[in-house]
Amino acid sequence: MTVEMIFVGTELLLGNIVNTNGQFLSEQCAAMGLPVYYQTVVGDNEERLSAVISSAFSRSDLIILCGGLGPTEDDLTKEVCARTMGIELAENAEVRAELDAFMSRLKMTVTENNYKQAMAPRGAVYADWKRDGAKNGGEGGNDGNGPADPEADHCFLLRNPNGTAPGLVMERKGKTAVLLPGPPGEMKPMFLEQVKPYLVKKSGQVFLSAVVKICGVGESAAETRVLDLVDSQTNPTIATYAKTGEVHIRVTASGKTKEDAQKLIKPCVKELKKRFGDDVYTAKPEVSLEMAVVKLLNKYDLTMTTAESCTGGMVAARLVSVPGVSDVFSEGFVTYSNKAKRKFLDVSKTTLKKYTAVSAEAAKEMAIGGVFANDSDMCVSVTGLAGPDGATPEVPLGRVYIGCCLKGKTVVKEYNFTGNREKIRELAASAALDLARRCILEQCKGK
Amino acid sequence: MTVEMIFVGTELLLGNIVNTNGQFLSEQCAAMGLPVYYQTVVGDNEERLSAVISSAFSRSDLIILCGGLGPTEDDLTKEVCARTMGIELAENAEVRAELDAFMSRLKMTVTENNYKQAMAPRGAVYADWKRDGAKNGGEGGNDGNGPADPEADHCFLLRNPNGTAPGLVMERKGKTAVLLPGPPGEMKPMFLEQVKPYLVKKSGQVFLSAVVKICGVGESAAETRVLDLVDSQTNPTIATYAKTGEVHIRVTASGKTKEDAQKLIKPCVKELKKRFGDDVYTAKPEVSLEMAVVKLLNKYDLTMTTAESCTGGMVAARLVSVPGVSDVFSEGFVTYSNKAKRKFLDVSKTTLKKYTAVSAEAAKEMAIGGVFANDSDMCVSVTGLAGPDGATPEVPLGRVYIGCCLKGKTVVKEYNFTGNREKIRELAASAALDLARRCILEQCKGK
Repeated sequence: MTVEMIFVGTELLLGNIVNTNGQFLSEQCAAMGLPVYYQTVVGDNEERLSAVISSAFSRSDLIILCGGLGPTEDDLTKEVCARTMGIELAENAEVRAELDAFMSRLKMTVTENNYKQAMAPRGAVYADWKRDGAKNGGEGGNDGNGPADPEADHCFLLRNPNGTAPGLVMERKGKTAVLLPGPPGEMKPMFLEQVKPYLVKKSGQVFLSAVVKICGVGESAAETRVLDLVDSQTNPTIATYAKTGEVHIRVTASGKTKEDAQKLIKPCVKELKKRFGDDVYTAKPEVSLEMAVVKLLNKYDLTMTTAESCTGGMVAARLVSVPGVSDVFSEGFVTYSNKAKRKFLDVSKTTLKKYTAVSAEAAKEMAIGGVFANDSDMCVSVTGLAGPDGATPEVPLGRVYIGCCLKGKTVVKEYNFTGNREKIRELAASAALDLARRCILEQCKGK
Repeated sequence: MTVEMIFVGTELLLGNIVNTNGQFLSEQCAAMGLPVYYQTVVGDNEERLSAVISSAFSRSDLIILCGGLGPTEDDLTKEVCARTMGIELAENAEVRAELDAFMSRLKMTVTENNYKQAMAPRGAVYADWKRDGAKNGGEGGNDGNGPADPEADHCFLLRNPNGTAPGLVMERKGKTAVLLPGPPGEMKPMFLEQVKPYLVKKSGQVFLSAVVKICGVGESAAETRVLDLVDSQTNPTIATYAKTGEVHIRVTASGKTKEDAQKLIKPCVKELKKRFGDDVYTAKPEVSLEMAVVKLLNKYDLTMTTAESCTGGMVAARLVSVPGVSDVFSEGFVTYSNKAKRKFLDVSKTTLKKYTAVSAEAAKEMAIGGVFANDSDMCVSVTGLAGPDGATPEVPLGRVYIGCCLKGKTVVKEYNFTGNREKIRELAASAALDLARRCILEQCKGK
């Protein structure tokens, strides 16, 4: 069963809002093993929406339509989809009564266009997933709103406790349309509680992913090293993704049960870890680089501090993004000026004069100074030239020195990043976290 | 000229990432008055990508393709688009040389698949917008890489200073494809600096935008206050956009000349500034909140420091993102633990015990302590509960106190943000910058 998504709304085409519904629904479908090959964004326009729905049905079994279920004239999704599928709509007495109750609860007046939301395929009733799965609406009940449309194999309504527009599932001649409201606060619970159980039952397959995340290796180099695996595997499938300062290798397997899929993923992840060694910082989709660093600090009972110049607090901010970081991180310095480097980190005047602030020597003294100033087990320091101005023949734009002092041993590495100020700083922050990770592994692993 | 967008990447279909490029490009096209009726997301699959491109060309004049330009086997956009348009690709000597230089600068080995990125329509050269508009590549130059493809009316390369994959513009038989890399850090500057001037020239109309950026007012409140303007205006058009902690009101006018458009925008911006007063921090699209703060610090010859707990360096990092910040910002503290708040900011033990670290009292002492510790003119402090754990009946999740000490006067404000840890911290960092801005205005404006 292939799934296709259609997002309806001129506000998406104008860029007023980000399509976060797209990510949510994609991730949900991926987790259920439902292949999604196309997503389309279209405006509130009858002709174009109808064409997009027809085109989607020509290549996919099930389409999820999101948005355009509201009471205004612009909201066309239900009407156009039903017409395209050849399903007739009629006012549903239950939905109309609910609308009246909802509006009177909010002390709002019901205007005639509100009742647009009460239109539904004849005979459709609410699916009551919580009580009896698809038994009620799911099997096509009859609520007394006239006989069910004989051409529509299976139509039912989805409750919307967070808004006035109910969702809708329409099946006809082997094709299915799932209609969801656009506001994420209405769409997400409706999907999770009512649509997901319906889709799981319909698909009968399980799908699992691991993400092997790598630092210090470029995307094309990483891909070259896994090309044989990518080419030889069909289940699991393997794909590489370039992220800022990282490469992610996603391993995805499908099976009849979760255990079947897990069994297929395991040897592949093991092989990737073997190939990339310490360049791998996790195989879990939800773990970030900063989480991996915090986990290592916790594991080896270390405290860490930061001494940042060009990153200006980005390394500290990424550490603090990890819940529970307070056990291992309690403070950090942003020392942007030379004066601050001297005052807080005790970087010597001679070093700054002789080598300048963007030097291996300064990075080293910053890292050592951070450990002493904060009485912590380790400190990572960053000093570099993020630009746009200040480049010299000796210090080009993008030159960054990162130091890491751990248990009396200090490592300094030179980096030459490319990109604008923002990009250089982001890459430097990632490299700093990665260097901290490697230093901990080198000095603590197996001890 | 109608524009259509195609986003290429299985990671979008799997929901690994949110399609923020979609919003960015939509907003940009809307600002140029270019109608966009369809957007499609498709995976890294030759057959489906080709079908989507053909379908897009059947209904739109210009398509923007985003993603799939990298060096890996998955990256198919350029090859498939060229084939669909009937344009032949050949290795471009200039791009190959640049790739070699780039990789050697990074001290990385060039693998054979890297050279995939050097394939381009025969005869295509880089457009040099900065030097001579579209004159060079734009008019179809020849760089000695063989004769230009006679069927391709007009093809040129787009420089990518932030990555290895160049962008590409291909025109043939009245249809145009613009190919951009997927990573936003590469795509956005390429679009703004090279594609935007090309599209402006192509559309033959001058569009000008002002963006009145507002802090401290919610989106629906802001919308309500400009509804009359939105409804009554057609040129300029007015649209509101919700951003994290900010609302942007975009005013777009079209005219035959830049001056015509400017004349239409001016009274509208004036009216918006009058309505929102000091809530407005800029009317320039390129100015960020941190830039506005740095500009004010420079204007009134003030130095600023930061004392951050839950934001963990985000405020400092945003200030440091502004080039030339060193005149007004030289250091900041990340004081995540109570111990660090006491040690570096001299917050009293009694305050932390009696009121806890998430209190107006602690925020006040942090701000004052920051000024003294760093001998600066002002300090902004942030302390709050970003969660996910730690909420109490007295201190709910999202409660943040922000302090600002300027010239002996200290202001503290309480905020109650909603969202996850990430969102709460982002909102807090924006609120901190906004409070600093308001304090400067209040104490220094007109003096």
